[in-house]
Amino acid sequence: MPNPTAAMLVIGDEILSGRTRDANMHYLAGQLTEAGIDLREVRVVSDDSSAIVAAVKALSASYDTVFTSGGIGPTHDDITADCIAEAFGVHIDVRDDARALLAAHYAKTGSELNTARLRMARIPDGATLIDNPVSVAPGFKIGNVYVMAGVPSVFQAMVASVLPTLTGGAPLISRSLRVVRGEGDIAEPLGVFATQFSDLSVGSYPFQKDGIYGANIVVRGTDAARLDSAMATLESIFAA
Amino acid sequence: MPNPTAAMLVIGDEILSGRTRDANMHYLAGQLTEAGIDLREVRVVSDDSSAIVAAVKALSASYDTVFTSGGIGPTHDDITADCIAEAFGVHIDVRDDARALLAAHYAKTGSELNTARLRMARIPDGATLIDNPVSVAPGFKIGNVYVMAGVPSVFQAMVASVLPTLTGGAPLISRSLRVVRGEGDIAEPLGVFATQFSDLSVGSYPFQKDGIYGANIVVRGTDAARLDSAMATLESIFAA
Repeated sequence: MPNPTAAMLVIGDEILSGRTRDANMHYLAGQLTEAGIDLREVRVVSDDSSAIVAAVKALSASYDTVFTSGGIGPTHDDITADCIAEAFGVHIDVRDDARALLAAHYAKTGSELNTARLRMARIPDGATLIDNPVSVAPGFKIGNVYVMAGVPSVFQAMVASVLPTLTGGAPLISRSLRVVRGEGDIAEPLGVFATQFSDLSVGSYPFQKDGIYGANIVVRGTDAARLDSAMATLESIFAA
Repeated sequence: MPNPTAAMLVIGDEILSGRTRDANMHYLAGQLTEAGIDLREVRVVSDDSSAIVAAVKALSASYDTVFTSGGIGPTHDDITADCIAEAFGVHIDVRDDARALLAAHYAKTGSELNTARLRMARIPDGATLIDNPVSVAPGFKIGNVYVMAGVPSVFQAMVASVLPTLTGGAPLISRSLRVVRGEGDIAEPLGVFATQFSDLSVGSYPFQKDGIYGANIVVRGTDAARLDSAMATLESIFAA
């Protein structure tokens, strides 16, 4: 059975302007691979309502699971929750369970639960909350979409809350061989090898460092014994 | 006149599996912002022909310019050039101008211009070559799509070749103010400010470090005098 598929939607002008280098995509990619879920596509869009709604609809229809990051804070540019509600055609308002979480938290810290902070309790109808052990304001899940924060520490905590609830396939195992030869010399025997092991994924990632040219050949699959056999073959090909 | 728009397509299993952390998106985002070109969307897809073709068609139709990175090397998993040809409905084969570049280079370095390396001279009909001063194998431009390498040093060199040929708008200038207050306290006055300066883009990016909570408020626009006025207002709001 093929592994379940996933997509990610990164929301935020700060990524597209180059101000911030996104860290969540790389983190989620590694976590999903370990869990046996195939991350097939990532999209990055700006804080623009129609762009977010269109991307959520497209990804939600194409993949088993969608993860979003960004745009669920208290400020005027945090519009993700409202866009998700629009994409699913449901009503959104401050919800009692989310408000209670925030009220308890701000009572403890002595901050006021003002109108801006209450925005973080806006949850689309039918959504279930995602725990935020870092800063309390919850994420949420609706349909097959998990809506999470953009701040990396909070995003990672939410991924940790969510992942155990997902049913993954067999974790993808990868093995690699470093070959100190130009990719142009590697390519032909590697193509033959990839055909021979067409049940595995075979990639070649060139490097050049201190005047040395080479490539890391990465073989991925779910069956450790099959990978062992592939790597033995690969080593014999490039041992010369 | 609004700035020209752009999108980027990052191609590669290694990004989606979490093996490699993409660096090209952040680099291109910064370069385009300086050039006055609005990067509106980024997509990351795997080395899958139908996914690449569909993304190229969608982005090429929606934005003024599209930049791709990855998948133009000599190995079997480098399928970008063929996918671009398919997306544009044109023929692709080894082209004499690209072959001549490679032949001269490999004659000099003493490597053989074998079948695998010749794959890097496969250029869609009607495309113009993009100079690669790092490792010679060219990128190419067809329609509004610039096809470039995934290796960051080569990608950056190709961007440097291409950018001076593009007509940008006014460069986007950004100013920021660091406010050491929780976003929930900042949000309400900031919303009023954003409405007052609705011709500018106003973003709030929270941070928490060593127990200190705050946000960087970033204001972006193309008119320096207008930004000065906005920042003076912003400072007076948060000076208290």
